[in-house]
Amino acid sequence: MSAPDFELGLVTAVVQDDHDGAVLMVAHMNREAWERTRASGRAWFWSRSRSELWEKGATSGNFMEVVSMTLDCDRDAVLLRVRAQGPACHTGARSCFFEAVD
Amino acid sequence: MSAPDFELGLVTAVVQDDHDGAVLMVAHMNREAWERTRASGRAWFWSRSRSELWEKGATSGNFMEVVSMTLDCDRDAVLLRVRAQGPACHTGARSCFFEAVD
Repeated sequence: MSAPDFELGLVTAVVQDDHDGAVLMVAHMNREAWERTRASGRAWFWSRSRSELWEKGATSGNFMEVVSMTLDCDRDAVLLRVRAQGPACHTGARSCFFEAVD
Repeated sequence: MSAPDFELGLVTAVVQDDHDGAVLMVAHMNREAWERTRASGRAWFWSRSRSELWEKGATSGNFMEVVSMTLDCDRDAVLLRVRAQGPACHTGARSCFFEAVD
């Protein structure tokens, strides 16, 4: 069964909208976040700043239903394609990536 | 001028094909990689495993022309939309994300 390599630390999770391919956010997973995501079908992450496990949408209600997961070639990053039930960003923006660089 | 926050360490760079939105790879940038990318219009990264600056394509010839860059809400991640001149992955795969999780 495919699984990330957690030996080197946290795994980078890239979240992409399954509908149109927009990149919504980047977060991190430890083994427990990974396992909860697999078990629930919803995105769970590890917050580096708060040092806690969190389910995306637990406070906002904007859960993310995971459509597929794909590991990268060295298994330290995972691409989640999701159906988002609302904005990904805490600012209310659809995507956390909204500040264009000139 | 918009710039990442390098105070907390490396910035996560998500590379997306500008043509069809495919996520090609994840890499990291320090300040110098950021500045070289800005100056050259091609993707430069910081290799955590080799502890060195590298230009994507310098060995493979598969350079990445940067079409746009967008920072995320806390400025510790950047989305690069690129035109790739070949496979992103060292395995020869178009994208580093190719191992589907059941």
